[in-house]
Amino acid sequence: MTAMFAPRGSHEEIEEGAVFQPKFDRDGLIGAIVTDAKGVVLMFAHMNAEALAATIETGVAHFYSRSRAKLWKKGESSGHEMTVEELRVDCDQDALWLKVRVAGTGAACHTGRKSCFYRAVEGGAAGATRLRPVDDARLFDPKAVYKG
Amino acid sequence: MTAMFAPRGSHEEIEEGAVFQPKFDRDGLIGAIVTDAKGVVLMFAHMNAEALAATIETGVAHFYSRSRAKLWKKGESSGHEMTVEELRVDCDQDALWLKVRVAGTGAACHTGRKSCFYRAVEGGAAGATRLRPVDDARLFDPKAVYKG
Repeated sequence: MTAMFAPRGSHEEIEEGAVFQPKFDRDGLIGAIVTDAKGVVLMFAHMNAEALAATIETGVAHFYSRSRAKLWKKGESSGHEMTVEELRVDCDQDALWLKVRVAGTGAACHTGRKSCFYRAVEGGAAGATRLRPVDDARLFDPKAVYKG
Repeated sequence: MTAMFAPRGSHEEIEEGAVFQPKFDRDGLIGAIVTDAKGVVLMFAHMNAEALAATIETGVAHFYSRSRAKLWKKGESSGHEMTVEELRVDCDQDALWLKVRVAGTGAACHTGRKSCFYRAVEGGAAGATRLRPVDDARLFDPKAVYKG
């Protein structure tokens, strides 16, 4: 599947070139950061080559579900599809950044929140950290949306 | 090293609890998204438990360099240290989001750019993609900063 994309070139080509040469890890995956247009980080997920190709071709975010081991069109069950407004790649082409517009209630998290990052880590020592809720209002009730 | 943090609890505790139970992958790493206060994604890197503990304890971002296989205090060579203004964890506690303030020129990328994500992926078919530079001005000259 990775043959859909150009093979990795030189260090210079990867960092400064105009050819997309995404690096998939040993599991065939690349990390994808998803934000809204305002820069709120909504979620972090992985894509395989098939998911990345589907995302580019349809303009709608597709990922690879590691728990279900299959292609995952985000929002398929809940109606929260993500339209990709911009897709960026980083310097060494082993991470992606998607700016998206979320359909439905605008929630990206399966818990019903807008963002999966609804808790801040507090505390000055690693062993004494606590999580503090931040922007954790639910936009939908997951029990009503995900049945069974 | 992962004993610095609480062991993983139930699904409910992980998603809704106030105890930080970060999940490290089989290499002992957790992914960390780094943005500025405005939500520009600056970089994506990995932390091991030691790097995460150092980040929490000092308030300055530390990562694990996979290429050098060691703890990496970001900015150590270039002066671009990152002060952590907020650290968040996601629903399943296997990804982190750091909002930071970058010292020096404000560049987070080793190529001299503010962000590592200085190219957008364009094109409607996976095999016909091109990279278009976006916000790719260099804030420093990497050849002058990284010597040898």
